Amino acid sequence: MPEGPPTGGRAHRDLERYAGLFASRTRVMKSSAMRDLMAITERPEVISLAGGLPDTSTFPAERLASIMSKVAADSSAKALQYAPTEGMSAVADCIAQVMAEEDTVIDPSDVLVTTGGQQVIDLVCKTLIDPGDVIIAEAPTYPGAVPAFTAYQADVVQIEMDSDGMRIDEMEEALERLEREGRRPKFIYTIPNFQNPAGVTMSLPRRRRLVEVARERELLVLEDNPYGLLRYEGDPLPTLRSLDGGAFVIYLGTFSKILSPGLRLGWAVAPVPVLQKMNLGKQESDLCSSSLSQMFVTQYFAEGHWQDYVLSLRDVYRRRRDTMLDALAEHFPAEATWTHPQGGLFVWATLPDYIDTTDLLALALQSNVAFVPGRAAYLDGRGGSSMRLNFSGVDEHAIREGIRRIGEVVREQVGLFATITSRPQSGQAPMSAPEPAAIDQELADVLHLPKRDKRERRAE
Amino acid sequence: MPEGPPTGGRAHRDLERYAGLFASRTRVMKSSAMRDLMAITERPEVISLAGGLPDTSTFPAERLASIMSKVAADSSAKALQYAPTEGMSAVADCIAQVMAEEDTVIDPSDVLVTTGGQQVIDLVCKTLIDPGDVIIAEAPTYPGAVPAFTAYQADVVQIEMDSDGMRIDEMEEALERLEREGRRPKFIYTIPNFQNPAGVTMSLPRRRRLVEVARERELLVLEDNPYGLLRYEGDPLPTLRSLDGGAFVIYLGTFSKILSPGLRLGWAVAPVPVLQKMNLGKQESDLCSSSLSQMFVTQYFAEGHWQDYVLSLRDVYRRRRDTMLDALAEHFPAEATWTHPQGGLFVWATLPDYIDTTDLLALALQSNVAFVPGRAAYLDGRGGSSMRLNFSGVDEHAIREGIRRIGEVVREQVGLFATITSRPQSGQAPMSAPEPAAIDQELADVLHLPKRDKRERRAE
Repeated sequence: MPEGPPTGGRAHRDLERYAGLFASRTRVMKSSAMRDLMAITERPEVISLAGGLPDTSTFPAERLASIMSKVAADSSAKALQYAPTEGMSAVADCIAQVMAEEDTVIDPSDVLVTTGGQQVIDLVCKTLIDPGDVIIAEAPTYPGAVPAFTAYQADVVQIEMDSDGMRIDEMEEALERLEREGRRPKFIYTIPNFQNPAGVTMSLPRRRRLVEVARERELLVLEDNPYGLLRYEGDPLPTLRSLDGGAFVIYLGTFSKILSPGLRLGWAVAPVPVLQKMNLGKQESDLCSSSLSQMFVTQYFAEGHWQDYVLSLRDVYRRRRDTMLDALAEHFPAEATWTHPQGGLFVWATLPDYIDTTDLLALALQSNVAFVPGRAAYLDGRGGSSMRLNFSGVDEHAIREGIRRIGEVVREQVGLFATITSRPQSGQAPMSAPEPAAIDQELADVLHLPKRDKRERRAE
Repeated sequence: MPEGPPTGGRAHRDLERYAGLFASRTRVMKSSAMRDLMAITERPEVISLAGGLPDTSTFPAERLASIMSKVAADSSAKALQYAPTEGMSAVADCIAQVMAEEDTVIDPSDVLVTTGGQQVIDLVCKTLIDPGDVIIAEAPTYPGAVPAFTAYQADVVQIEMDSDGMRIDEMEEALERLEREGRRPKFIYTIPNFQNPAGVTMSLPRRRRLVEVARERELLVLEDNPYGLLRYEGDPLPTLRSLDGGAFVIYLGTFSKILSPGLRLGWAVAPVPVLQKMNLGKQESDLCSSSLSQMFVTQYFAEGHWQDYVLSLRDVYRRRRDTMLDALAEHFPAEATWTHPQGGLFVWATLPDYIDTTDLLALALQSNVAFVPGRAAYLDGRGGSSMRLNFSGVDEHAIREGIRRIGEVVREQVGLFATITSRPQSGQAPMSAPEPAAIDQELADVLHLPKRDKRERRAE
């Protein structure tokens, strides 16, 4: 309905007025649980184990200043100007160096510099996915990929993992089943190293078999490798890209975890026809990535010590991982299990299945501690008793205290369950959590995860 | 077909292998003419009037250095960390200042900070457009919007402009016609100030009527206003957002033209339900905009002299505009016409309709000068005799020389036509251009505009 004259600065809030104008994809678009939690976890009293944040305070401030002074002195106009869509060639050379560190040889002209690794996921979907198309992903999968997959209305088939990563045998069974249904997946999405959120690493035999299957079936693989250089124990394994040679693997890399996410610089290396389509997609999405950030990276690499910072991060994060594993052993009940990541940023903990971690988060926030509920890593409502715990973003003291607080609310729930039932039973419906009052309403407003009651409806 | 072992770093190039995997949108996705031209126009010997580049050499290098030193000293960890998806609140306050400069009052909490203005166009399409949905745009329209509209498979209806901007009467007729066909446009896309590429400005009565029509019909308007503060003559006109008050206008702003495009920072101000959907779209696209850039903007505005730089740009660009208009009068033939922009970055020139500016560009590049062929600003093959000329990116000497060179090839064509025919006739089919040999092949490879022969086929 038309209305009276404008009433000032505040934009209008009447959803119904606009509902008829929205694209159909908006009906399935999901919010990222981590993004939703960001506002709550910014409160200084909250210990957040929810984010996937590197500790950027470890980067020397004086180094940021000196690099930018050099950029300003040598190339101010270039740093402030538009860049080519594919990225500056000097940055592609830096990227080739990073990938060579994992024994992966590429031609810098096959690189597309992107606005963070997230944009690679978006552009791969834009290039490959029509509504209803199938994507194969791990179970659980990167919670930030879930909103991208849903925005493109993909049908995501999630394959179980164990301590050796994705179960390639189960993936092959799923491919057979899809083939019988006449459905060819567009790509297989995997994080082979220190998977987000599960913290497990794909074994070499599985890597070899995955690449073989991709070749046999002519399927693309999106290899998401943000943490490959952040290994704290064990021997490095070859990237899928190096095993494949570039025929079927699209490689996703990023400077976010080895330098800074605030730069918003990631990259794709892909077969040329795919890369060209992704370039078109990037043109219409944001024209090019930040020149200021690209010049920063160029100068940073020119100074020749980028590996030293990665080494220092490895030391810091290894200690934090060890602290978290120790704290979990001390504070989590015997009924809980968790992964032992050889690198990366995350531990995946699984509680008895009568505990719903979305409800648990509301209780945890009352104790000023946060994690990502496991359901954020699934598209099918699974993961309800698991949680992702980050150990890179806060210091060892906070990790210990955060795990202690979560352990406390978990133990309360376990104890509560024990008093309600004679003995815990596997497969039982989740019990009702106590009302966490005020904060639960706030959480319900911001956290758009499927709620337990919805899952129950689905199970009926 | 499976093939042998990997053969090294070079990615594979066999398009057929991947063709069956591409999404249907890739069949209509277009390359941006400006992006395509970028590689060619980067050659130092080429005078490019093709880009939409501000002159970033006018920004003092020592100021870039001092701002970044301050950011490093005060907030290094924050500048290198992830930011909220909606943007830092301090940046939203800067944006409110910029918009207040055009008498447009907003609530900073209604701002979404984006990766350049281009991302606003992408996110509006992502939020509103299903394949086949109608967008109303100006004829000609921003060449960078064309690839976004095509990527979302929109049906774009382009409305003629005159010296007072978009013909709102014709727009209303188009809306009536669409209504009879049962089709409701999702949004009306307009650049009211110093339109890109036409250089014209929408009059106040048309602005008022456009906002009225939007209210009467409950249609959204995307007001793209990158150049509003770059006015070189005449009185400022109210933004559509200020006339509408925020009910139906989505406002697009950017720091690209008043500070730097290399920062990749733009913004949207939209009705809250629309803004929330755009925020979801941004989450899955790139998580957040560059923190480094946002901290730069925050510090730059804190120093309190941002308007001084805009004033200095106005002086520089006013002189360049005047130089271009003088050079056009001197070097272009009597058969050509062009617009007189009161601000912004572009002049739109129209040649006799027997000249095809896509062919002319190949000849112009042989003379080491570039422009954007008019057809890049249409989705329907029109614009074949027009060109967009940028006066912000190069100095006055280069503008004069560039226009002289273009004028020379235009005059050659006019002369050639006069020798072929007794007298030029309006409406005649374009003549064949001479073969521009080597560079034409290169141009054909990179410039994916509809070619003249296609247009002729369409006319048959």
